[in-house]
Amino acid sequence: MAEQTGGERESWKTGGKYVESGGEFTRDQRYIATRITADGRDGFPVEPDRYRLVVSRACPWANRLIIVRRLLGLESALSMGVAGPTHDARSWTFDLDPGGRDPVLGIERLQEAYFARFPGYERGITVPAIVDVPTGQVVTNDYARMSLDLSTEWTAYHRDGAPQLYPEPLRDEIDEVNDGVFRDVNNGVYRCGFAGSQAAYDKAYRRLFDRLDQLSDRLRDQRYLVGDTITEADVRLFTTLVRFDPVYHGHFKCNRNKLTEMPVLWAYARDLFQTPGFGDTIDFDHIKRHYYQVHVDINPTGIVPLGPDLSGWLTPHGREALGGRPFGDGTPPPPPAEHERVPVEHTAAA
Amino acid sequence: MAEQTGGERESWKTGGKYVESGGEFTRDQRYIATRITADGRDGFPVEPDRYRLVVSRACPWANRLIIVRRLLGLESALSMGVAGPTHDARSWTFDLDPGGRDPVLGIERLQEAYFARFPGYERGITVPAIVDVPTGQVVTNDYARMSLDLSTEWTAYHRDGAPQLYPEPLRDEIDEVNDGVFRDVNNGVYRCGFAGSQAAYDKAYRRLFDRLDQLSDRLRDQRYLVGDTITEADVRLFTTLVRFDPVYHGHFKCNRNKLTEMPVLWAYARDLFQTPGFGDTIDFDHIKRHYYQVHVDINPTGIVPLGPDLSGWLTPHGREALGGRPFGDGTPPPPPAEHERVPVEHTAAA
Repeated sequence: MAEQTGGERESWKTGGKYVESGGEFTRDQRYIATRITADGRDGFPVEPDRYRLVVSRACPWANRLIIVRRLLGLESALSMGVAGPTHDARSWTFDLDPGGRDPVLGIERLQEAYFARFPGYERGITVPAIVDVPTGQVVTNDYARMSLDLSTEWTAYHRDGAPQLYPEPLRDEIDEVNDGVFRDVNNGVYRCGFAGSQAAYDKAYRRLFDRLDQLSDRLRDQRYLVGDTITEADVRLFTTLVRFDPVYHGHFKCNRNKLTEMPVLWAYARDLFQTPGFGDTIDFDHIKRHYYQVHVDINPTGIVPLGPDLSGWLTPHGREALGGRPFGDGTPPPPPAEHERVPVEHTAAA
Repeated sequence: MAEQTGGERESWKTGGKYVESGGEFTRDQRYIATRITADGRDGFPVEPDRYRLVVSRACPWANRLIIVRRLLGLESALSMGVAGPTHDARSWTFDLDPGGRDPVLGIERLQEAYFARFPGYERGITVPAIVDVPTGQVVTNDYARMSLDLSTEWTAYHRDGAPQLYPEPLRDEIDEVNDGVFRDVNNGVYRCGFAGSQAAYDKAYRRLFDRLDQLSDRLRDQRYLVGDTITEADVRLFTTLVRFDPVYHGHFKCNRNKLTEMPVLWAYARDLFQTPGFGDTIDFDHIKRHYYQVHVDINPTGIVPLGPDLSGWLTPHGREALGGRPFGDGTPPPPPAEHERVPVEHTAAA
């Protein structure tokens, strides 16, 4: 896989400092590389009802897993715990749950599952993470690998009609697209926002918008990034685009244009947003509160903007005219289960 | 005059703190109320070559004076000194001038002119200010009054074809419009940006966008705010609108929409921008550097965004179709003198 791994890097060691003073933001890309596979070669075989996916709906890296799990219909095989949108310097916490504890893992802080596996674990306590429920130990937080493994290792538990998000013949092309999208877009927005010098910011900004222009060109006459169906590549670009105007444009100074001012990407993002499994995972309230309240070194007041106007997400996008078969030979997923629905007041329909 | 006074309140006492911790931002509206009048009743009669208008091109309150002076053709009667876009906790400074001194006043810091008049002056060292050159003393920094006085007291030195910016029959209506624009828009954006609590921000945001919606309605079928010509009311709204996307949208969290997404106001603002005397006073570089570098309590990194894309300012606006006579029975001003031109790399044409 060509893409570098990455994750929402919120280290409990760094005490809430995100800006890399005087230089470029560098993402700590050392993750727990243990894999959950069909053959269980790392000691963690795919099994239903054994693991718990821990996410925050705020986090774009976790959002990928939420989407992929929905598209593939893995909800009943792999349960999901949702951490609150804000966290302290130590850990993501289960403050949304009754009593502030994840009801399956019984823990208050995700850190506990990391410590259960590696006492004194010193790297970032990140989401997404998959926890082995019987032992309470984190198995992996290597989200880039995780989402591909949901597609390729968990096939026995996919729903009927699950799409092929990482089809064999397209993997090289998907990897190549993902590589540029990761460097310049997914991680590029963080490199703008956490830059510690004007030069580092300027460089990240130029690479971001050059890449977005290139992606606009690619998507002008083509409905999806690779092939004519939704793939892992679309999931990865979507999670950044959906956060672009609510947080990256202002908070991270990615402000050449809003997404709404880039017509091809805006229509592409709306098309995905309106596709079952994408928009129904998006909690704009969590997204905004996370970025604006946690990153105190770039938003010391902690005030969360009331904008942007989100009503445009539900407007017609016209991308059907380009053809394409969103789910290939498969079908869209059914709506999320009641207990996994995003509260309507946190959505674009609010 | 119904409008409250206001000014770019950058007090040397407050050490660079702008956010009103825990509450609402309140503008210190105590200004030096001395007036320069035709009859000289405050001891300062209108005279050519006697006074110097000190501005920063960054500051929206000073920008009004720059525009009015241009529209009325007062350049040769009232010279202008331009302070740099950033300043320290004590004063605006003449760092753009050779040797860092204003060539007419011979001072490095605007504070010196305030102290010359009032030793130990403790309120804000603000622009715009008019200085009496022979004594080196500030006469007034009451910018709201100052711009009206340029229209009504300096008539002997207006150019041929100068417009009526504050015509007698329209004064009540202009005052009424200005009152709402000041409270909710000109000062409203600061109340969003410097709010010290979420509640204070929310309130300011709602009042701002309610007012902008109301102004959009007013301007939908009417080219200018009051009557069918440019007046003081248009000058005052313009200086906030032109800063909206470069600074207020992101830096002050006025982000329901960009100006570019509010079609009536965006066309109205472009119409004025393309009118001689308006757009030719705008230095986007100074504007962005001022806000992003001076307000360290809301932008601690001091990084200045590269966006937004400004090329739209020069696109057709279509407002001529609404009729109106921009200068009434007068004429547009000629281009600015060479030494008062904004460097092209700081403009929307860059």
